[in-house]
Amino acid sequence: MAAVWLEAMEHAVSLARTAGTLVREAVQRDMKVMMKSCSVDLVTQTDQKVEQLIVKSVKEKFPTHSFIGEESVAAGEPCVLSDAPTWIVDPVDGTTNFVHGFPFVAVSIGFAVNKQLLFGVVYSCMDDRMFSALRGGGAFCDHQPLRVSDQTDIHQSIVATEFGSCRDPDVVDKIFSSMKRILSLPVHGIRGVGTAALNLCLVASGSVEAYYEIGVHCWDYAAGALIVEEAGGVLMDVDGGPLDLMSRRVLAANCRSIAEQLVQQIQIFSPERDDADTESGAARDLKFH
Amino acid sequence: MAAVWLEAMEHAVSLARTAGTLVREAVQRDMKVMMKSCSVDLVTQTDQKVEQLIVKSVKEKFPTHSFIGEESVAAGEPCVLSDAPTWIVDPVDGTTNFVHGFPFVAVSIGFAVNKQLLFGVVYSCMDDRMFSALRGGGAFCDHQPLRVSDQTDIHQSIVATEFGSCRDPDVVDKIFSSMKRILSLPVHGIRGVGTAALNLCLVASGSVEAYYEIGVHCWDYAAGALIVEEAGGVLMDVDGGPLDLMSRRVLAANCRSIAEQLVQQIQIFSPERDDADTESGAARDLKFH
Repeated sequence: MAAVWLEAMEHAVSLARTAGTLVREAVQRDMKVMMKSCSVDLVTQTDQKVEQLIVKSVKEKFPTHSFIGEESVAAGEPCVLSDAPTWIVDPVDGTTNFVHGFPFVAVSIGFAVNKQLLFGVVYSCMDDRMFSALRGGGAFCDHQPLRVSDQTDIHQSIVATEFGSCRDPDVVDKIFSSMKRILSLPVHGIRGVGTAALNLCLVASGSVEAYYEIGVHCWDYAAGALIVEEAGGVLMDVDGGPLDLMSRRVLAANCRSIAEQLVQQIQIFSPERDDADTESGAARDLKFH
Repeated sequence: MAAVWLEAMEHAVSLARTAGTLVREAVQRDMKVMMKSCSVDLVTQTDQKVEQLIVKSVKEKFPTHSFIGEESVAAGEPCVLSDAPTWIVDPVDGTTNFVHGFPFVAVSIGFAVNKQLLFGVVYSCMDDRMFSALRGGGAFCDHQPLRVSDQTDIHQSIVATEFGSCRDPDVVDKIFSSMKRILSLPVHGIRGVGTAALNLCLVASGSVEAYYEIGVHCWDYAAGALIVEEAGGVLMDVDGGPLDLMSRRVLAANCRSIAEQLVQQIQIFSPERDDADTESGAARDLKFH
């Protein structure tokens, strides 16, 4: 592993802690909430301020690296995963929680080279816990190694998922239908803490056996996905194929058999890809015809 | 307020902390999980051990007081709310979370005289936070006064609820139908941390605007209900009528208008009452015919 990548990871951990401290301090203050795509998709000044802080610091220290950030993309920057070293950042994962003071909010920083994730850092702001993983080096929470649950029976499992922020009736129908089928397998329970990054850390910690969601973005799950993998878990698309960082679909589990049983229950749909605008316009054209 | 009630409350706070410390320590150990009513309704040795500790201590200190405890009722003790001073105890609220190490587990101790709640104590074991309320004296988390959210627009709200541990298809249909209607109002989100007591504390803390559930027991919501009321919130049955501690149905909200809008969306059903066995056998007879 090139020393420069380790230096980048150290920088990511330090940045996540600095950014997360700003987030934690902001939770107690009044926040100016602005609407983004719709009335339930929120963005705050903190999201933008924290992302700017991270972008500026990365660009100074690693001027040749690429950057994909939730707020940069929202502001019109391209969302391209090239072979270049790329930072994939969500400054505030769980913005709805953040606005309400619901105590699960994370800073998520993933890093990929040649389109492969190399490290992931998720800082849980409210309880000051740092999750991290380096490819091949294991996953940790602070200095504690993480290990997924050893449960192999889906009926003894907790599955994490979310209702999401889309209120399109067809999408809501599919989300509820999948959840009902999974609950009725039966499983011990369904949970969701309102952030993809921390749901993935719950899989890595063994507190839940699996997490899946359709509609998330690459910055929500890049870092957490590697943390699950390095904690011994498996990753795939919700259709059972390989995980695609740009597909906006993720399934993470402690073991392959539980993941594959969930694939059987999930009603698939395909949100517009994160890199839709960059695929010679095809996906965007489709959207308007 | 008679001094003896204050003494009882001090004792409850101390007992909840002692019991909660046992619970926290047990989370890291292997647990012998026994099935209760069905494969998703779990009970552990810790539930029983902690309840015995609380019963013993209360009986020694307040020999004339009555007691309703989750594990005592499961073992055949009557579940009667009389006019006598009555301790209403859940030794481990969130047993499924407890078994999985999902970080929301509480000890819940409510206390009623003349069928009216006088104090409530909820100890959040994993993060060592003590929620409490004395009727007329406000609600607190540790030494911080609690206040419900001042949001009045349900579309800007988070609603907490649970899928529950019943897997009867008709019940599951109603639970999902209510959730879907509420999500589609729309609201900012639906959350649930897997314990009624802590969901109620989230309402009292202003992190969510409301919480409702059908199928819970008096020991799950007695203490938390008073904490919500003393934090400025409202309580009612899910049908809009007055809260009934034995009905196994609860709706708590930051304000009346949000509560009443939720009532319009909730598909009502009526689990067997907690005091069914004591109502001259009528409810029990019904069950067998």
